[in-house]
Amino acid sequence: MLKRTVFFISDGTGITAGALGKLLEHFPGTQFTQVRLPFTDTLDKIKLAQEAILNAAVEDGGRPVVIMTLGNLELRSTLKESNAYFIDLFNTFIDPLSLELDQKPLRGAGIAHSVMGSKYNDRMEAVNFTLNHDDGMTNSGLEEADVILIGVSRCGKTPTSVYLAMQFGIKAANYPLIPEDFERGSLPAILHKHLDKIFGLTIKPERLHAVRNERRSGSFYASIENCRQEIATAETLMRNAGITWADSTSRSVEELSAIIMEKTRKTA
Amino acid sequence: MLKRTVFFISDGTGITAGALGKLLEHFPGTQFTQVRLPFTDTLDKIKLAQEAILNAAVEDGGRPVVIMTLGNLELRSTLKESNAYFIDLFNTFIDPLSLELDQKPLRGAGIAHSVMGSKYNDRMEAVNFTLNHDDGMTNSGLEEADVILIGVSRCGKTPTSVYLAMQFGIKAANYPLIPEDFERGSLPAILHKHLDKIFGLTIKPERLHAVRNERRSGSFYASIENCRQEIATAETLMRNAGITWADSTSRSVEELSAIIMEKTRKTA
Repeated sequence: MLKRTVFFISDGTGITAGALGKLLEHFPGTQFTQVRLPFTDTLDKIKLAQEAILNAAVEDGGRPVVIMTLGNLELRSTLKESNAYFIDLFNTFIDPLSLELDQKPLRGAGIAHSVMGSKYNDRMEAVNFTLNHDDGMTNSGLEEADVILIGVSRCGKTPTSVYLAMQFGIKAANYPLIPEDFERGSLPAILHKHLDKIFGLTIKPERLHAVRNERRSGSFYASIENCRQEIATAETLMRNAGITWADSTSRSVEELSAIIMEKTRKTA
Repeated sequence: MLKRTVFFISDGTGITAGALGKLLEHFPGTQFTQVRLPFTDTLDKIKLAQEAILNAAVEDGGRPVVIMTLGNLELRSTLKESNAYFIDLFNTFIDPLSLELDQKPLRGAGIAHSVMGSKYNDRMEAVNFTLNHDDGMTNSGLEEADVILIGVSRCGKTPTSVYLAMQFGIKAANYPLIPEDFERGSLPAILHKHLDKIFGLTIKPERLHAVRNERRSGSFYASIENCRQEIATAETLMRNAGITWADSTSRSVEELSAIIMEKTRKTA
Protein backbone atom coordinates (compact mmCIF):
# COMPACT_ATOMS: atom_id res chain seq x y z
CA MET A 1 0.00 0.00 0.00
CA LEU A 2 1.21 3.52 -0.83
CA LYS A 3 2.33 5.59 2.13
CA ARG A 4 2.07 9.35 2.54
CA THR A 5 2.53 11.64 5.50
CA VAL A 6 0.06 14.49 5.90
CA PHE A 7 1.17 17.51 7.94
CA PHE A 8 -1.28 19.97 9.44
CA ILE A 9 0.76 23.11 10.02
CA SER A 10 -0.83 26.10 11.68
CA ASP A 11 0.12 29.20 13.63
CA GLY A 12 -2.87 28.39 15.86
CA THR A 13 -4.41 25.15 17.07
CA GLY A 14 -4.39 23.49 13.64
CA ILE A 15 -7.90 22.25 14.29
CA THR A 16 -9.48 23.77 11.17
CA ALA A 17 -6.70 22.33 8.99
CA GLY A 18 -7.00 19.04 10.87
CA ALA A 19 -10.72 18.83 10.11
CA LEU A 20 -9.87 18.52 6.42
CA GLY A 21 -7.94 15.38 7.31
CA LYS A 22 -11.30 13.62 7.25
CA LEU A 23 -11.32 14.06 3.47
CA LEU A 24 -8.44 11.59 3.31
CA GLU A 25 -11.01 8.87 3.99
CA HIS A 26 -11.88 9.26 0.31
CA PHE A 27 -8.55 7.60 -0.52
CA PRO A 28 -8.58 4.20 1.18
CA GLY A 29 -5.81 3.00 -1.14
CA THR A 30 -3.19 5.15 0.59
CA GLN A 31 -1.93 4.67 4.12
CA PHE A 32 -1.69 8.14 5.67
CA THR A 33 0.37 9.13 8.69
CA GLN A 34 -1.09 12.35 10.13
CA VAL A 35 1.19 14.80 11.94
CA ARG A 36 -0.09 17.96 13.63
CA LEU A 37 2.24 20.92 14.12
CA PRO A 38 0.21 23.58 15.94
CA PHE A 39 1.56 26.95 17.10
CA THR A 40 4.11 27.03 14.26
CA ASP A 41 4.54 30.78 14.53
CA THR A 42 8.29 31.43 14.30
CA LEU A 43 10.95 30.89 11.64
CA ASP A 44 12.68 28.34 13.91
CA LYS A 45 9.53 26.25 14.13
CA ILE A 46 9.10 26.47 10.33
CA LYS A 47 12.65 25.11 9.94
CA LEU A 48 11.79 22.18 12.22
CA ALA A 49 8.65 21.55 10.18
CA GLN A 50 10.75 21.54 6.99
CA GLU A 51 13.09 18.93 8.45
CA ALA A 52 10.13 16.76 9.41
CA ILE A 53 8.72 17.11 5.87
CA LEU A 54 12.04 16.06 4.35
CA ASN A 55 12.39 13.05 6.65
CA ALA A 56 8.84 11.90 5.93
CA ALA A 57 9.40 12.16 2.18
CA VAL A 58 12.47 9.92 2.41
CA GLU A 59 10.72 7.44 4.67
CA ASP A 60 7.50 7.22 2.60
CA GLY A 61 9.14 7.35 -0.81
CA GLY A 62 6.67 10.11 -1.83
CA ARG A 63 6.33 13.80 -1.05
CA PRO A 64 4.15 14.69 1.93
CA VAL A 65 0.83 16.54 1.78
CA VAL A 66 0.86 19.76 3.81
CA ILE A 67 -2.44 21.35 4.86
CA MET A 68 -1.58 24.76 6.25
CA THR A 69 -3.00 27.92 7.81
CA LEU A 70 -0.30 30.52 8.35
CA GLY A 71 -1.28 34.17 8.50
CA ASN A 72 2.30 35.48 8.26
CA LEU A 73 3.47 35.81 4.63
CA GLU A 74 7.17 35.21 5.34
CA LEU A 75 6.53 32.01 7.29
CA ARG A 76 4.18 30.87 4.58
CA SER A 77 6.58 31.38 1.70
CA THR A 78 9.50 29.86 3.61
CA LEU A 79 7.52 26.70 4.35
CA LYS A 80 6.56 26.40 0.69
CA GLU A 81 10.21 26.07 -0.30
CA SER A 82 9.92 22.46 0.87
CA ASN A 83 9.13 19.74 -1.60
CA ALA A 84 5.56 18.83 -0.68
CA TYR A 85 2.03 19.02 -2.01
CA PHE A 86 0.58 22.12 -0.34
CA ILE A 87 -3.03 22.87 0.44
CA ASP A 88 -2.93 26.42 1.76
CA LEU A 89 -6.17 27.48 3.43
CA PHE A 90 -5.24 31.14 3.12
CA ASN A 91 -4.74 30.84 -0.65
CA THR A 92 -7.70 28.55 -1.16
CA PHE A 93 -10.27 30.09 1.16
CA ILE A 94 -9.39 33.21 3.00
CA ASP A 95 -7.85 35.26 0.19
CA PRO A 96 -10.63 34.44 -2.34
CA LEU A 97 -13.25 35.13 0.35
CA SER A 98 -11.54 38.42 1.00
CA LEU A 99 -12.10 39.41 -2.64
CA GLU A 100 -15.67 38.18 -2.59
CA LEU A 101 -16.48 40.08 0.61
CA ASP A 102 -14.33 43.06 -0.37
CA GLN A 103 -12.83 43.02 3.11
CA LYS A 104 -9.31 42.45 4.42
CA PRO A 105 -8.97 39.33 6.58
CA LEU A 106 -7.43 39.31 10.06
CA ARG A 107 -4.04 37.64 9.70
CA GLY A 108 -3.03 37.09 13.33
CA ALA A 109 -2.40 33.62 14.68
CA GLY A 110 -5.06 31.43 16.21
CA ILE A 111 -8.08 33.46 15.21
CA ALA A 112 -10.37 30.60 14.31
CA HIS A 113 -10.44 28.91 17.72
CA SER A 114 -10.15 31.79 20.15
CA VAL A 115 -12.73 32.20 22.90
CA MET A 116 -13.85 35.30 21.05
CA GLY A 117 -15.36 33.05 18.41
CA SER A 118 -19.12 33.28 18.18
CA LYS A 119 -21.10 30.86 20.27
CA TYR A 120 -18.18 29.66 22.38
CA ASN A 121 -19.93 30.30 25.67
CA ASP A 122 -23.09 28.61 24.45
CA ARG A 123 -21.09 25.51 23.62
CA MET A 124 -19.45 25.36 27.04
CA GLU A 125 -22.78 25.92 28.77
CA ALA A 126 -24.28 23.11 26.69
CA VAL A 127 -21.43 20.75 27.66
CA ASN A 128 -22.08 21.45 31.36
CA PHE A 129 -25.81 20.96 30.92
CA THR A 130 -25.32 17.70 29.04
CA LEU A 131 -22.90 16.22 31.59
CA ASN A 132 -25.32 17.16 34.38
CA HIS A 133 -28.22 15.54 32.52
CA ASP A 134 -26.50 12.34 31.44
CA ASP A 135 -28.23 9.00 31.90
CA GLY A 136 -31.37 10.41 33.54
CA MET A 137 -29.20 11.76 36.37
CA THR A 138 -31.73 14.45 37.24
CA ASN A 139 -35.24 15.46 36.23
CA SER A 140 -34.68 19.10 37.04
CA GLY A 141 -34.02 21.62 34.30
CA LEU A 142 -35.36 19.43 31.47
CA GLU A 143 -37.37 22.40 30.19
CA GLU A 144 -34.01 23.95 29.26
CA ALA A 145 -32.97 20.96 27.13
CA ASP A 146 -32.92 21.39 23.36
CA VAL A 147 -33.07 17.63 22.80
CA ILE A 148 -33.68 14.61 25.04
CA LEU A 149 -32.24 11.34 23.75
CA ILE A 150 -33.80 8.06 24.91
CA GLY A 151 -32.95 4.42 24.30
CA VAL A 152 -31.82 1.21 25.98
CA SER A 153 -28.66 1.19 28.08
CA ARG A 154 -25.43 1.29 26.00
CA CYS A 155 -26.99 2.24 22.66
CA GLY A 156 -24.87 5.37 22.23
CA LYS A 157 -26.86 8.11 23.95
CA THR A 158 -24.01 9.57 26.00
CA PRO A 159 -21.34 10.10 23.32
CA THR A 160 -23.99 11.46 20.93
CA SER A 161 -25.24 13.90 23.59
CA VAL A 162 -21.71 15.07 24.34
CA TYR A 163 -20.96 15.57 20.65
CA LEU A 164 -24.16 17.59 20.11
CA ALA A 165 -23.20 19.84 23.02
CA MET A 166 -19.50 20.26 22.27
CA GLN A 167 -19.82 20.69 18.52
CA PHE A 168 -23.11 22.53 18.14
CA GLY A 169 -23.96 23.99 21.55
CA ILE A 170 -27.09 21.84 21.75
CA LYS A 171 -28.23 21.14 25.32
CA ALA A 172 -28.79 17.39 25.07
CA ALA A 173 -30.15 15.46 28.04
CA ASN A 174 -30.42 11.68 27.85
CA TYR A 175 -32.62 9.09 29.54
CA PRO A 176 -32.13 5.34 29.56
CA LEU A 177 -35.14 3.12 28.93
CA ILE A 178 -34.97 0.52 31.69
CA PRO A 179 -36.84 -2.66 32.77
CA GLU A 180 -39.13 -0.55 34.97
CA ASP A 181 -40.31 1.36 31.88
CA PHE A 182 -40.77 -1.86 29.93
CA GLU A 183 -42.93 -3.39 32.70
CA ARG A 184 -45.05 -0.28 32.93
CA GLY A 185 -45.25 -0.17 29.14
CA SER A 186 -44.74 3.57 28.84
CA LEU A 187 -42.06 6.24 28.83
CA PRO A 188 -40.93 7.68 32.18
CA ALA A 189 -43.67 10.08 33.38
CA ILE A 190 -41.31 13.06 33.50
CA LEU A 191 -40.80 12.79 29.73
CA HIS A 192 -44.47 13.03 28.78
CA LYS A 193 -44.50 16.82 28.73
CA HIS A 194 -41.34 16.95 26.62
CA LEU A 195 -42.39 14.66 23.77
CA ASP A 196 -41.67 17.33 21.17
CA LYS A 197 -37.96 17.31 21.90
CA ILE A 198 -37.39 13.60 22.44
CA PHE A 199 -35.38 11.65 19.90
CA GLY A 200 -34.83 7.89 20.13
CA LEU A 201 -31.78 5.78 19.48
CA THR A 202 -31.96 2.10 18.77
CA ILE A 203 -29.35 -0.53 17.94
CA LYS A 204 -29.16 -4.04 16.51
CA PRO A 205 -29.41 -6.79 19.17
CA GLU A 206 -26.14 -8.45 18.09
CA ARG A 207 -24.23 -5.21 18.43
CA LEU A 208 -25.79 -4.36 21.81
CA HIS A 209 -24.97 -7.87 23.04
CA ALA A 210 -21.32 -7.37 22.02
CA VAL A 211 -21.10 -3.91 23.64
CA ARG A 212 -22.69 -5.03 26.90
CA ASN A 213 -20.58 -8.18 27.02
CA GLU A 214 -17.43 -6.06 27.11
CA ARG A 215 -18.47 -4.67 30.48
CA ARG A 216 -20.59 -7.41 32.02
CA SER A 217 -19.64 -10.57 30.27
CA GLY A 218 -22.02 -13.51 30.65
CA SER A 219 -24.68 -11.50 32.51
CA PHE A 220 -28.42 -11.74 31.82
CA TYR A 221 -28.23 -8.00 31.06
CA ALA A 222 -25.79 -8.68 28.21
CA SER A 223 -27.45 -11.85 26.88
CA ILE A 224 -28.66 -11.78 23.30
CA GLU A 225 -32.19 -12.78 24.43
CA ASN A 226 -32.41 -9.86 26.84
CA CYS A 227 -30.96 -7.46 24.29
CA ARG A 228 -33.54 -8.58 21.71
CA GLN A 229 -36.36 -8.23 24.21
CA GLU A 230 -35.29 -4.80 25.46
CA ILE A 231 -34.85 -3.40 21.97
CA ALA A 232 -38.18 -4.73 20.73
CA THR A 233 -39.98 -3.30 23.77
CA ALA A 234 -38.17 0.05 23.54
CA GLU A 235 -39.10 0.38 19.87
CA THR A 236 -42.74 -0.39 20.69
CA LEU A 237 -42.73 2.26 23.43
CA MET A 238 -41.23 4.83 21.06
CA ARG A 239 -43.60 3.92 18.23
CA ASN A 240 -46.63 4.26 20.52
CA ALA A 241 -45.43 7.64 21.72
CA GLY A 242 -44.85 8.84 18.14
CA ILE A 243 -41.12 9.33 18.65
CA THR A 244 -38.68 9.42 15.74
CA TRP A 245 -35.61 7.28 16.15
CA ALA A 246 -32.38 6.34 14.41
CA ASP A 247 -30.28 3.18 14.47
CA SER A 248 -26.84 3.74 15.96
CA THR A 249 -25.40 0.36 14.94
CA SER A 250 -23.35 1.55 12.02
CA ARG A 251 -23.48 5.31 12.44
CA SER A 252 -20.86 7.60 13.96
CA VAL A 253 -21.77 10.23 16.56
CA GLU A 254 -21.22 12.79 13.80
CA GLU A 255 -23.82 11.09 11.60
CA LEU A 256 -26.29 10.60 14.45
CA SER A 257 -25.90 14.23 15.52
CA ALA A 258 -26.50 15.50 12.00
CA ILE A 259 -29.62 13.31 11.73
CA ILE A 260 -30.92 14.47 15.12
CA MET A 261 -30.39 18.13 14.27
CA GLU A 262 -32.16 17.70 10.97
CA LYS A 263 -35.15 15.82 12.41
CA THR A 264 -35.58 18.09 15.42
CA ARG A 265 -34.91 21.13 13.24
CA LYS A 266 -32.11 22.45 15.39
CA THR A 267 -29.64 24.83 13.84
CA ALA A 268 -26.14 25.56 15.07
CA MET B 1 -22.64 45.84 9.01
CA LEU B 2 -22.57 43.71 5.85
CA LYS B 3 -24.66 40.55 5.98
CA ARG B 4 -23.97 37.28 4.21
CA THR B 5 -25.46 33.82 4.55
CA VAL B 6 -23.09 30.86 4.43
CA PHE B 7 -24.51 27.49 3.42
CA PHE B 8 -22.77 24.21 4.22
CA ILE B 9 -24.22 21.75 1.75
CA SER B 10 -23.18 18.12 1.89
CA ASP B 11 -24.43 14.69 0.89
CA GLY B 12 -23.19 13.52 4.31
CA THR B 13 -23.10 15.15 7.73
CA GLY B 14 -21.67 18.43 6.47
CA ILE B 15 -19.26 18.43 9.40
CA THR B 16 -16.09 18.73 7.33
CA ALA B 17 -17.56 21.62 5.36
CA GLY B 18 -18.84 23.13 8.60
CA ALA B 19 -15.37 23.07 10.14
CA LEU B 20 -14.28 25.59 7.52
CA GLY B 21 -16.91 27.91 8.91
CA LYS B 22 -14.36 28.76 11.61
CA LEU B 23 -12.35 30.58 8.94
CA LEU B 24 -15.13 33.15 8.77
CA GLU B 25 -13.79 34.49 12.09
CA HIS B 26 -11.11 36.13 9.95
CA PHE B 27 -13.79 38.52 8.67
CA PRO B 28 -15.24 40.26 11.73
CA GLY B 29 -16.60 43.05 9.53
CA THR B 30 -19.31 40.81 8.06
CA GLN B 31 -22.26 39.38 9.95
CA PHE B 32 -22.62 35.76 8.82
CA THR B 33 -25.71 33.59 9.13
CA GLN B 34 -24.66 29.96 8.94
CA VAL B 35 -27.06 27.36 7.52
CA ARG B 36 -26.28 23.64 7.45
CA LEU B 37 -27.95 21.42 4.87
CA PRO B 38 -26.68 17.88 5.54
CA PHE B 39 -27.81 14.75 3.66
CA THR B 40 -28.49 16.77 0.50
CA ASP B 41 -28.32 13.71 -1.70
CA THR B 42 -31.23 13.99 -4.14
CA LEU B 43 -32.21 16.42 -6.88
CA ASP B 44 -35.28 17.45 -4.86
CA LYS B 45 -33.12 18.44 -1.91
CA ILE B 46 -30.79 20.36 -4.23
CA LYS B 47 -33.81 22.31 -5.52
CA LEU B 48 -34.79 23.19 -1.95
CA ALA B 49 -31.22 24.32 -1.29
CA GLN B 50 -31.36 26.52 -4.39
CA GLU B 51 -34.54 28.18 -3.16
CA ALA B 52 -32.92 28.84 0.21
CA ILE B 53 -29.87 30.34 -1.52
CA LEU B 54 -32.07 32.64 -3.59
CA ASN B 55 -34.08 33.79 -0.57
CA ALA B 56 -30.94 34.48 1.46
CA ALA B 57 -29.45 36.53 -1.38
CA VAL B 58 -32.54 38.73 -1.51
CA GLU B 59 -32.66 39.12 2.25
CA ASP B 60 -28.96 39.89 2.70
CA GLY B 61 -28.56 42.04 -0.40
CA GLY B 62 -25.50 39.99 -1.38
CA ARG B 63 -24.92 36.54 -2.82
CA PRO B 64 -24.45 33.71 -0.32
CA VAL B 65 -21.25 31.74 0.21
CA VAL B 66 -21.74 28.00 -0.35
CA ILE B 67 -19.22 25.54 1.09
CA MET B 68 -20.03 22.17 -0.41
CA THR B 69 -19.07 18.49 -0.52
CA LEU B 70 -21.14 16.59 -3.05
CA GLY B 71 -19.73 13.41 -4.55
CA ASN B 72 -22.37 13.15 -7.27
CA LEU B 73 -21.46 15.18 -10.38
CA GLU B 74 -25.05 15.89 -11.47
CA LEU B 75 -26.07 17.22 -8.06
CA ARG B 76 -22.91 19.27 -7.92
CA SER B 77 -23.36 20.95 -11.28
CA THR B 78 -27.07 21.59 -10.68
CA LEU B 79 -26.35 23.33 -7.40
CA LYS B 80 -23.73 25.49 -9.05
CA GLU B 81 -26.35 26.98 -11.39
CA SER B 82 -27.36 29.13 -8.41
CA ASN B 83 -25.92 32.59 -8.02
CA ALA B 84 -23.56 32.15 -5.10
CA TYR B 85 -19.87 32.14 -4.25
CA PHE B 86 -18.96 28.44 -4.22
CA ILE B 87 -16.18 26.76 -2.30
CA ASP B 88 -16.30 23.18 -3.55
CA LEU B 89 -14.24 20.80 -1.42
CA PHE B 90 -14.20 18.22 -4.20
CA ASN B 91 -12.74 20.71 -6.69
CA THR B 92 -10.42 22.31 -4.19
CA PHE B 93 -9.17 19.28 -2.28
CA ILE B 94 -10.30 15.89 -3.34
CA ASP B 95 -9.79 16.15 -7.09
CA PRO B 96 -6.32 17.75 -6.82
CA LEU B 97 -5.36 15.19 -4.16
CA SER B 98 -6.55 12.49 -6.51
CA LEU B 99 -4.06 13.70 -9.13
CA GLU B 100 -1.29 14.01 -6.55
CA LEU B 101 -1.90 10.50 -5.19
CA ASP B 102 -2.67 9.07 -8.63
CA GLN B 103 -5.72 7.38 -7.14
CA LYS B 104 -9.45 7.71 -7.79
CA PRO B 105 -11.39 9.02 -4.78
CA LEU B 106 -14.46 7.32 -3.33
CA ARG B 107 -17.43 9.47 -4.32
CA GLY B 108 -20.22 8.00 -2.20
CA ALA B 109 -22.07 10.11 0.34
CA GLY B 110 -20.98 10.51 3.93
CA ILE B 111 -17.56 8.91 3.65
CA ALA B 112 -15.69 11.33 5.90
CA HIS B 113 -17.66 10.69 9.07
CA SER B 114 -18.62 7.06 8.82
CA VAL B 115 -17.78 4.70 11.67
CA MET B 116 -15.33 3.10 9.24
CA GLY B 117 -13.12 6.16 9.65
CA SER B 118 -9.80 5.44 11.27
CA LYS B 119 -9.64 5.79 15.04
CA TYR B 120 -13.39 6.04 15.56
CA ASN B 121 -13.48 3.30 18.17
CA ASP B 122 -10.49 4.79 19.99
CA ARG B 123 -12.32 8.09 20.22
CA MET B 124 -15.48 6.53 21.65
CA GLU B 125 -13.46 4.51 24.14
CA ALA B 126 -11.65 7.66 25.20
CA VAL B 127 -14.96 9.49 25.73
CA ASN B 128 -16.17 6.69 27.99
CA PHE B 129 -12.90 6.67 29.91
CA THR B 130 -12.95 10.43 30.34
CA LEU B 131 -16.55 10.57 31.59
CA ASN B 132 -15.77 7.77 34.05
CA HIS B 133 -12.68 9.61 35.30
CA ASP B 134 -14.15 13.10 35.56
CA ASP B 135 -13.52 15.17 38.67
CA GLY B 136 -11.47 12.55 40.52
CA MET B 137 -14.50 10.23 40.42
CA THR B 138 -12.34 7.13 40.72
CA ASN B 139 -8.70 6.27 41.29
CA SER B 140 -8.92 3.00 39.41
CA GLY B 141 -7.62 2.71 35.90
CA LEU B 142 -5.45 5.83 36.02
CA GLU B 143 -2.57 3.86 34.53
CA GLU B 144 -4.64 3.75 31.32
CA ALA B 145 -4.95 7.55 31.17
CA ASP B 146 -2.99 9.40 28.48
CA VAL B 147 -3.26 12.68 30.37
CA ILE B 148 -4.42 13.69 33.85
CA LEU B 149 -5.56 17.31 34.18
CA ILE B 150 -5.45 18.96 37.59
CA GLY B 151 -6.51 22.37 38.89
CA VAL B 152 -8.89 24.17 41.23
CA SER B 153 -12.61 23.53 40.95
CA ARG B 154 -14.26 25.24 37.94
CA CYS B 155 -11.07 26.14 36.05
CA GLY B 156 -12.07 24.27 32.88
CA LYS B 157 -10.77 20.72 33.42
CA THR B 158 -13.96 18.90 32.43
CA PRO B 159 -14.74 20.50 29.05
CA THR B 160 -11.06 20.32 28.09
CA SER B 161 -10.92 16.61 29.02
CA VAL B 162 -14.05 15.89 27.02
CA TYR B 163 -12.70 17.76 24.00
CA LEU B 164 -9.38 15.88 24.12
CA ALA B 165 -11.26 12.59 24.19
CA MET B 166 -13.91 13.35 21.57
CA GLN B 167 -11.66 15.11 19.10
CA PHE B 168 -8.36 13.26 19.47
CA GLY B 169 -9.13 9.99 21.24
CA ILE B 170 -6.99 11.02 24.22
CA LYS B 171 -7.99 9.31 27.48
CA ALA B 172 -8.06 12.35 29.76
CA ALA B 173 -8.79 11.92 33.47
CA ASN B 174 -9.13 14.99 35.66
CA TYR B 175 -8.62 15.69 39.37
CA PRO B 176 -9.72 18.75 41.29
CA LEU B 177 -7.27 20.34 43.71
CA ILE B 178 -9.30 20.85 46.88
CA PRO B 179 -8.84 22.41 50.37
CA GLU B 180 -7.65 19.05 51.72
CA ASP B 181 -4.75 19.09 49.24
CA PHE B 182 -3.95 22.72 50.10
CA GLU B 183 -3.82 21.95 53.85
CA ARG B 184 -1.59 18.93 53.30
CA GLY B 185 0.51 21.01 50.93
CA SER B 186 0.94 18.29 48.31
CA LEU B 187 -0.84 16.65 45.39
CA PRO B 188 -3.25 13.78 46.12
CA ALA B 189 -1.12 10.68 46.89
CA ILE B 190 -2.62 8.67 44.04
CA LEU B 191 -1.18 11.14 41.53
CA HIS B 192 2.44 10.84 42.67
CA LYS B 193 3.17 7.85 40.49
CA HIS B 194 1.61 9.53 37.43
CA LEU B 195 3.54 12.81 37.47
CA ASP B 196 4.76 12.31 33.90
CA LYS B 197 1.25 12.57 32.48
CA ILE B 198 -0.16 15.31 34.68
CA PHE B 199 -0.90 18.70 33.15
CA GLY B 200 -2.17 21.65 35.18
CA LEU B 201 -4.78 24.27 34.43
CA THR B 202 -4.93 27.58 36.19
CA ILE B 203 -7.17 30.63 35.84
CA LYS B 204 -7.22 34.28 36.87
CA PRO B 205 -8.87 34.89 40.29
CA GLU B 206 -11.34 37.44 38.88
CA ARG B 207 -12.54 34.99 36.25
CA LEU B 208 -12.82 32.10 38.71
CA HIS B 209 -14.77 34.34 41.09
CA ALA B 210 -17.22 35.17 38.29
CA VAL B 211 -17.62 31.54 37.21
CA ARG B 212 -18.16 30.26 40.76
CA ASN B 213 -20.55 33.07 41.57
CA GLU B 214 -22.87 31.92 38.78
CA ARG B 215 -23.46 28.68 40.67
CA ARG B 216 -22.96 29.58 44.32
CA SER B 217 -23.43 33.28 44.54
CA GLY B 218 -22.17 34.96 47.70
CA SER B 219 -20.51 31.81 49.09
CA PHE B 220 -17.06 31.72 50.69
CA TYR B 221 -16.16 29.22 47.95
CA ALA B 222 -16.88 31.85 45.28
CA SER B 223 -15.37 34.83 47.12
CA ILE B 224 -12.50 36.63 45.41
CA GLU B 225 -10.31 36.14 48.51
CA ASN B 226 -10.82 32.38 48.49
CA CYS B 227 -10.31 32.19 44.71
CA ARG B 228 -7.03 34.11 45.04
CA GLN B 229 -5.88 31.89 47.87
CA GLU B 230 -6.80 28.61 46.14
CA ILE B 231 -5.14 29.60 42.89
CA ALA B 232 -1.93 30.77 44.58
CA THR B 233 -1.71 27.55 46.60
CA ALA B 234 -2.52 25.35 43.60
CA GLU B 235 0.20 27.04 41.55
CA THR B 236 2.70 26.52 44.38
CA LEU B 237 1.77 22.83 44.58
CA MET B 238 2.19 22.41 40.83
CA ARG B 239 5.45 24.36 40.77
CA ASN B 240 6.89 22.21 43.59
CA ALA B 241 5.89 19.04 41.78
CA GLY B 242 7.44 20.25 38.51
CA ILE B 243 4.14 20.24 36.64
CA THR B 244 3.61 22.27 33.48
CA TRP B 245 0.41 24.30 33.40
CA ALA B 246 -1.57 26.64 31.18
CA ASP B 247 -3.93 29.49 31.99
CA SER B 248 -7.50 28.81 30.84
CA THR B 249 -8.78 32.35 31.41
CA SER B 250 -8.79 33.46 27.80
CA ARG B 251 -8.24 30.20 25.97
CA SER B 252 -10.81 27.98 24.28
CA VAL B 253 -10.90 24.22 24.88
CA GLU B 254 -9.49 23.88 21.37
CA GLU B 255 -6.48 26.03 22.27
CA LEU B 256 -5.96 24.33 25.64
CA SER B 257 -6.17 20.90 24.02
CA ALA B 258 -3.64 21.80 21.35
CA ILE B 259 -1.27 23.13 24.04
CA ILE B 260 -1.71 20.02 26.20
CA MET B 261 -1.07 17.70 23.27
CA GLU B 262 2.03 19.61 22.31
CA LYS B 263 3.47 19.76 25.85
CA THR B 264 2.69 16.15 26.68
CA ARG B 265 3.81 15.08 23.20
CA LYS B 266 0.59 13.30 22.37
CA THR B 267 -0.27 12.73 18.75
CA ALA B 268 -3.70 12.09 17.36
